[in-house]
Amino acid sequence: MNTTMTAERALKLDIEDLQIMAQRLRRHSMAMTAESASGHPTTCMSCAEIVSTLFFSAMDWDPTDPSAGSSDVFVLSKGHAAPIYYAALWEAGAIDHDLLTLRNFDSPLEGHPTPNLDWVRVATGSLGQGLSAGCGMALARRQDGGTERFYVLLGDGESAEGAVWEAAQLASHYSLDNLCAIVDVNAQGQSGRTMYGHDLETFVKRFEAFGWNAVAVDGHDVEALKSAFDKARDHRDGPTAIIARTLKGKGVSFVEDKDGFHGKPITKGEQLDRALAEIGDAEISVPRPKVDVQPLDFQIGASFEAWTPAFEKGQKVATRQAYGTALVNLGKACEDVFVIDADTKNSTFAEPFAKEFGERYVEAFIAEQNMVGVALGAATEGKLAFCSSFACFLSRAYDFIRMAGYSRPRALVLCGSHCGVSIGQDGASQMALEDLAMMRAVCGAKVYYPSDAMSTERIVQTVARDGGLAYIRTTRPKTPVLYGAEEEFYAGGSKVLRRSEADKVTIVGAGITLHEALAAADTLAADGIAVRVIDAYCVEPVDAATLCQAAEETGRLVVVEDHSAAGGLGEAVAAAVAGKAPIKHLAVRGTPRSGQPEELMSHFGIDAASIVAAVREA
Amino acid sequence: MNTTMTAERALKLDIEDLQIMAQRLRRHSMAMTAESASGHPTTCMSCAEIVSTLFFSAMDWDPTDPSAGSSDVFVLSKGHAAPIYYAALWEAGAIDHDLLTLRNFDSPLEGHPTPNLDWVRVATGSLGQGLSAGCGMALARRQDGGTERFYVLLGDGESAEGAVWEAAQLASHYSLDNLCAIVDVNAQGQSGRTMYGHDLETFVKRFEAFGWNAVAVDGHDVEALKSAFDKARDHRDGPTAIIARTLKGKGVSFVEDKDGFHGKPITKGEQLDRALAEIGDAEISVPRPKVDVQPLDFQIGASFEAWTPAFEKGQKVATRQAYGTALVNLGKACEDVFVIDADTKNSTFAEPFAKEFGERYVEAFIAEQNMVGVALGAATEGKLAFCSSFACFLSRAYDFIRMAGYSRPRALVLCGSHCGVSIGQDGASQMALEDLAMMRAVCGAKVYYPSDAMSTERIVQTVARDGGLAYIRTTRPKTPVLYGAEEEFYAGGSKVLRRSEADKVTIVGAGITLHEALAAADTLAADGIAVRVIDAYCVEPVDAATLCQAAEETGRLVVVEDHSAAGGLGEAVAAAVAGKAPIKHLAVRGTPRSGQPEELMSHFGIDAASIVAAVREA
Repeated sequence: MNTTMTAERALKLDIEDLQIMAQRLRRHSMAMTAESASGHPTTCMSCAEIVSTLFFSAMDWDPTDPSAGSSDVFVLSKGHAAPIYYAALWEAGAIDHDLLTLRNFDSPLEGHPTPNLDWVRVATGSLGQGLSAGCGMALARRQDGGTERFYVLLGDGESAEGAVWEAAQLASHYSLDNLCAIVDVNAQGQSGRTMYGHDLETFVKRFEAFGWNAVAVDGHDVEALKSAFDKARDHRDGPTAIIARTLKGKGVSFVEDKDGFHGKPITKGEQLDRALAEIGDAEISVPRPKVDVQPLDFQIGASFEAWTPAFEKGQKVATRQAYGTALVNLGKACEDVFVIDADTKNSTFAEPFAKEFGERYVEAFIAEQNMVGVALGAATEGKLAFCSSFACFLSRAYDFIRMAGYSRPRALVLCGSHCGVSIGQDGASQMALEDLAMMRAVCGAKVYYPSDAMSTERIVQTVARDGGLAYIRTTRPKTPVLYGAEEEFYAGGSKVLRRSEADKVTIVGAGITLHEALAAADTLAADGIAVRVIDAYCVEPVDAATLCQAAEETGRLVVVEDHSAAGGLGEAVAAAVAGKAPIKHLAVRGTPRSGQPEELMSHFGIDAASIVAAVREA
Repeated sequence: MNTTMTAERALKLDIEDLQIMAQRLRRHSMAMTAESASGHPTTCMSCAEIVSTLFFSAMDWDPTDPSAGSSDVFVLSKGHAAPIYYAALWEAGAIDHDLLTLRNFDSPLEGHPTPNLDWVRVATGSLGQGLSAGCGMALARRQDGGTERFYVLLGDGESAEGAVWEAAQLASHYSLDNLCAIVDVNAQGQSGRTMYGHDLETFVKRFEAFGWNAVAVDGHDVEALKSAFDKARDHRDGPTAIIARTLKGKGVSFVEDKDGFHGKPITKGEQLDRALAEIGDAEISVPRPKVDVQPLDFQIGASFEAWTPAFEKGQKVATRQAYGTALVNLGKACEDVFVIDADTKNSTFAEPFAKEFGERYVEAFIAEQNMVGVALGAATEGKLAFCSSFACFLSRAYDFIRMAGYSRPRALVLCGSHCGVSIGQDGASQMALEDLAMMRAVCGAKVYYPSDAMSTERIVQTVARDGGLAYIRTTRPKTPVLYGAEEEFYAGGSKVLRRSEADKVTIVGAGITLHEALAAADTLAADGIAVRVIDAYCVEPVDAATLCQAAEETGRLVVVEDHSAAGGLGEAVAAAVAGKAPIKHLAVRGTPRSGQPEELMSHFGIDAASIVAAVREA
């Protein structure tokens, strides 16, 4: 980390120049979107004074260091205001891209912020997610002893998202006085007036009811904003929300506070000229140093390579329990392991880590969206972040997970326990039957579904080593350990557990169904029918080479999974071997319900007996 | 609807009997979960007085009418308290199932409530969803002029879900004085103490900040509860929240207010006997009449069949716009059409309906979870419910959609606009590339992806006629109308648009890629290569028969979709034709970004040129 304070870092404009800068940012925002003939200029114009005051006065930051490892950090939750964010970075000399390339195919200045620009830690544009990320960053920085501040700019419209209030309650629960939210209350939504218009008092009351220090200001008054930021910095009893009254399209008469101008650029030519003339010239000089990227990162200690999972073959251990063991071992090997769970830690087995490393564990309570957002934010602070819940409840956070994919985190691991009908009596609401489909479709995500404790712990090691976004699906019931410690498990891999030259069919299973597949193979072997059995422990990317080889050598496949027929292992295999062999696909079709695990697996045709029948049929 | 007040309906116990009833409900809850050796007795015991007072005093309901079309309605948001709900219904004579069959494979008394029991309108068990459903019911009932009341019982732990606050803000915005939330503040979560323990004041402040009338009471004092319910009924200025202080496991010394007893049944035998002895005998007699099911339903008028979409072949109309036209036409044919959108109505084209039928339109603002929950609630009131947003933002509501599948609504249609990279410059955050995977995996959901205005409007007719849970994916850019009004579109159908005996390859497309497929077919035809082209407008269930026939007749398939490679059209086709022909799958692989639609479709290899190349390669 760069701890030297550079000359640029101390960059602070006076009140008059802050106002001029705000006007410059407005000019840029209009010109950029006009050139692109798309984008949201009026959304930028409402927050011009806020952004000016933040970047050129309130924040202590270093325009040469996008990692911001020792600086204050900005998160643009209202991602459609991307142009003004880029403009502010440009004015500070933090980037030198041509602002007029906004939204072009080959420009890092995308329509909404993405990490294609170094300065963007988390992709935004799906509203109501930035405060969770800011919360995670603030927690992680505090864990590391840093005293810098995190500023999240939200819109008033997006504050209708429940996730904002999940983040708000966690921030006050953990007393994050290094976190500051600014709500740009411009009173206009996309398709009409917001729910509360310019009723700032409602926002103040809500943040106060959620445990925050909250203050209302005129969002176009840089002096008032500067004073509010100063007070927020001095407030040492939890986070502060600055509720700023603004006008959408502020500064240009024919769009200011007008309905129907959301996401509408001003037309290049006469209309833009008129708008720029209304803003007037806004000259100011800011030094523009060169940029040097220094990403934050975690270090895994020597004990990582030395650590060997302590399970014996045949021992019965739930994979969810092995996840817990792995986290503790990982916690010993790496100080930057960050674990968060949504009041299910006694079921997902995040609990042993929480007990051993309390200061690195965060309880998200029952709020899965925020859990994922916090973990993502922590990952951007150089944490090796893990979050867990029942797999079905990760569906609650799907939009956050989707955006996490686009944020390309250094290392973010989701673990979903209690998958499939094999959980039994709790019934459909607690059974994840969509999670493989959901996670496989996420950009860049690796999806693992281990079948025993050994592979689970090894897969935790693998995802820690590989980084990126990964999902581990764990199982509620205990299953016997199949593998010895010498086995390796990696992205895109699989294991062939039964193989002979006489194999007539290949059975592909994963997780709990692998054990059913092995039992079926035993039954079939007793009848003289040889089958190949593959453990598809990595569902995305699936091991196409091994599957294609098996398809060619055995001529037929039976795929069995404790998941919906759509988008899971069966379809991954079907796509991988496309056309090479006929496939019989056993999956959970119809409406799941309460019952004993064995009853349900039999009813939905994914148990050993069903596999035997399918093989005989094939 | 049954509007006759029966004798049973007036069923009201006095204070003393309400307390006895609470004890009976505790006894049932313990015995049921002990027999099942699973479930959540302590969660039931905290709300025994609340449930007793609701069912046997506060609510005006008819134990013979599970449709509750002219009665007050109860929603158990804290679904894990299912046993006490079943026990109350049994005590009232509303059901006569053996309570000790709880959680059995052949019992409607599932671990968490599902519509396998007539009385359950919405499946719960994924926490924090009930208030949204209650909100939708209350809105719908008021639209129909009904004056009955809706009671939603929540846990304190689940109130950490942001969706609860999305529902809360909408309920006060629409001033739903027919809605009453009861928060059972037992202070214990699953894995530890809740965030706020017994701090009732925080809950009161929050509900007040969200525009509610809120009152704190002793949740074990039936007199206080009765008084609170009376006052809530009299409150005519918006919804009321009753914040009830309770103890988890109340009434049995060795579990009462103890940590570590979430989801733990009391062991049958000596332990249960001891617990029952602590509760003591609780004899009371309640009449138990017979049940007669009368579901609420909507009527589609004669104009429905007569209505013909007014598009000309070749005319360029975005499918999202046709969705809007269809909603208006449907609104004319059916008074029970209910439309809700999350501040995107000008993009999804829900707006024309909102303008023409304002009283049947609900603005959800930017809160997609609640939008889906409200629509589901309205569907249970006999509404033909539609909800829409950008397709990518429906991922925000995935858990709600999953639960909607399990709720088996009479008619609930989701429409997602702006799918795929073809939206262009806004970038990845606004592009749905996971929605087909997500929706195909939902229990019972039909998934449609129309390519032109005619098929879009016909599909809206189809989903209205068929009912159930359906998803319609619409496209941002305009596309030419391909079909005449005589064409039919149905679940599981497809259209073969190009066919000859000389076809060498079949190209399967849907939505925007169908037009690319047609253009590719033209290019190939000019080179003397005949190809079959299929419009897979129904992605789930996909038209396996037509696809298999094409596979057999043409020998090869090329599938092209504007979606992730996982879980969408390509894999649906791969699974349907499994093994019958090799498949080349063109889909969005890698990281999407900003750019012009044409640039992006070319870059990701899903445009006509890419299809031509794939066909030549095949």
